[in-house]
Amino acid sequence: MEIMKKESGTIVSPKGFKVGGLHSGVKRKKKDLGILYSEVPAQAAAVYTLNKVKAEPIKLTQKSLSKDGIIQAVIINSGNANACTGKQGMYDAIKMQEETAKKLNIEKDHVAVASTGIIGMEMPMDKIIPHISKLEITKTKEASLDFGEAILTTDTFIKSVSFETEIDGKKVIMSGAAKGSGMIEPKMGTMLSFITTDANIEADILDKALKDIVNQTYNCITVDGDTSTNDMVLVMANGEAENNLLTENHPEWEKFTELLKRTSEELSKMIARDGEGASKLIEVTVKGANMVTDARKVAKSVVGSSLVKTAVFGTDANWGRVIVAIGYSGVEIDPAQIDLTIGGIQLLEKSEPVTYSEELAKKYLEEEEVINIDINLNQGSHSGKAWGCDLTYDYVRINASYRS
Amino acid sequence: MEIMKKESGTIVSPKGFKVGGLHSGVKRKKKDLGILYSEVPAQAAAVYTLNKVKAEPIKLTQKSLSKDGIIQAVIINSGNANACTGKQGMYDAIKMQEETAKKLNIEKDHVAVASTGIIGMEMPMDKIIPHISKLEITKTKEASLDFGEAILTTDTFIKSVSFETEIDGKKVIMSGAAKGSGMIEPKMGTMLSFITTDANIEADILDKALKDIVNQTYNCITVDGDTSTNDMVLVMANGEAENNLLTENHPEWEKFTELLKRTSEELSKMIARDGEGASKLIEVTVKGANMVTDARKVAKSVVGSSLVKTAVFGTDANWGRVIVAIGYSGVEIDPAQIDLTIGGIQLLEKSEPVTYSEELAKKYLEEEEVINIDINLNQGSHSGKAWGCDLTYDYVRINASYRS
Repeated sequence: MEIMKKESGTIVSPKGFKVGGLHSGVKRKKKDLGILYSEVPAQAAAVYTLNKVKAEPIKLTQKSLSKDGIIQAVIINSGNANACTGKQGMYDAIKMQEETAKKLNIEKDHVAVASTGIIGMEMPMDKIIPHISKLEITKTKEASLDFGEAILTTDTFIKSVSFETEIDGKKVIMSGAAKGSGMIEPKMGTMLSFITTDANIEADILDKALKDIVNQTYNCITVDGDTSTNDMVLVMANGEAENNLLTENHPEWEKFTELLKRTSEELSKMIARDGEGASKLIEVTVKGANMVTDARKVAKSVVGSSLVKTAVFGTDANWGRVIVAIGYSGVEIDPAQIDLTIGGIQLLEKSEPVTYSEELAKKYLEEEEVINIDINLNQGSHSGKAWGCDLTYDYVRINASYRS
Repeated sequence: MEIMKKESGTIVSPKGFKVGGLHSGVKRKKKDLGILYSEVPAQAAAVYTLNKVKAEPIKLTQKSLSKDGIIQAVIINSGNANACTGKQGMYDAIKMQEETAKKLNIEKDHVAVASTGIIGMEMPMDKIIPHISKLEITKTKEASLDFGEAILTTDTFIKSVSFETEIDGKKVIMSGAAKGSGMIEPKMGTMLSFITTDANIEADILDKALKDIVNQTYNCITVDGDTSTNDMVLVMANGEAENNLLTENHPEWEKFTELLKRTSEELSKMIARDGEGASKLIEVTVKGANMVTDARKVAKSVVGSSLVKTAVFGTDANWGRVIVAIGYSGVEIDPAQIDLTIGGIQLLEKSEPVTYSEELAKKYLEEEEVINIDINLNQGSHSGKAWGCDLTYDYVRINASYRS
């Protein structure tokens, strides 16, 4: 069986996972406290923000997970990032961890803590703590939606995806829920992604697979170039599918990594699509590079260029801006060898302008919600992708509005 | 005598320089062709864009200047960048160089060529060539303004500065004219800067001084992170001041480099202030770094953050965004040691929030045209600065408008 997308899947589609979400009062109206739980301890792996300034829950989760590679529950609040909050912040994160462990009767270090929201404000623990015990944990579709909402900030839609396959003849499901760029106040580009699977795998090998895939997915999206203090991707694998233990020597190892890649890629694209103020998803594909990392670097340079982003918003097939972003990507390229198409319409061949219909190009940029920019460097045989969004008046509006 | 700013100075204030500018028809209405001339061959030094894709005039000037370090005239057009134009583009750049050399009866390789404007369009040589011979070259204030205008694209004001000092008891003048970010179409952030001086110095030592100062000035400004194909800073020193030859051993060497630094810094700040859509200049000063390069890197990270830029536009003293940009600058910092003030109002001490008047901070951001963000990393003894501008609705408007 190939990998199939489960359109009706949720974060709790894999066996043995439950969730909950409610409004605790950190945010004004929307749900702001979520919980994710595995009935059995799950092998886990995570990647964290590269920002030197890390939020307290990130530091705590990193420490707890490093002990034995097991996570059984995640407690998440939105509305307050618990970042730049010093000793009190760490104390509060530990309190959230302890309260969750107590509620579920599990080990404290098996609880991951995540926060997203305003930086530098003390956590409203009087709201969060009493509500942890009130969280109902179920396997319903409603609970998944509650959870999906509870982790959002300025996101405009819930980000969730689910895939199914078979490994060793056993049904294996992998699901993910994420939040993207756009924080209530002060609007960090915090990215959180939680992936659940019932696959049977150990933490260290899961960690290796995750790190590789993060470089191809989450690290290839950009909204405004800012890196939050709170970013985290966490995968929990509880083994309930009862496949043989997955290792790099397992005959279906590639299938598992493909499952993780597709889940991560779908969530990454949703996050990019929902960038602050975005009206379009931009997908840049670079072929013909000397190295995979070169291809991704060029793709990310193009998709991160403010001038390319505004050109897409302005429905202008402005290849000059694309060329310029390729040129300053830091990758050694031959500036005379670039092929470029936008939406399948070829604009450049070996860096020379090709006659094309400006009208058709404009129509493509106006009508499509996903804009494809394809570049061939004609140097090597490696390729890579990156995703981003256009830069609109709304980005400025959202981020220039005063915090209070 | 110290270094004095000459408020009424122009690009032709140093002895022996003349200029001209006119409308040739590349742009619709505004002046678009300029010339700068030294009565005697000038020792010259230049730095060029780091973009791998270089415009044809950049390649040509680089080649010509490398021959004997002498430039006697510069021909500049705006409206068309002559970039990504292939062999025809190089042919056209050479034609401009030859035509100028013929007009002035000087060596072809002593003419620098610069272009700024739309990328990837063939140069309208039928407009440019006949107008080169029509350029009048004088030492008047009017001619300086004509020249200043002829090199602009979407700039909103002419950028010019002049300083005077004495070296070996001789009056030495240094002046500069620049254009900044914002191209007509497709709106590259092309930066051109031309500096004239009558100081007596040789090309190789001038080159060394320039490279050092560029790192402290032009390379510390950012508008939108894009690097144009056409950027160039060119200094011409014609020796007419008759000071003793300047070398690093000259007793007033420091004064000369300070002159070059102040000229470059003033022009850089004007360029940042006139970033596309900008309403304010942001000056970030970083102290207490382990290395000068670290200090500049942190300063540039903060001033380049879209979230900091929109916060300034939104008059929000959002220190969380500043901390985040410090954290992802790539510099090893101690996240617990940061002092931060905005407009002299202290917001953080050793990374802990300080009680301050939000009202006063908002008033400062509303009323001032130059916003000072001061950071102390409290790690070492080095400092650095960077300059940028706020990110406004107008940035999006200017860059999202269709080329035609």
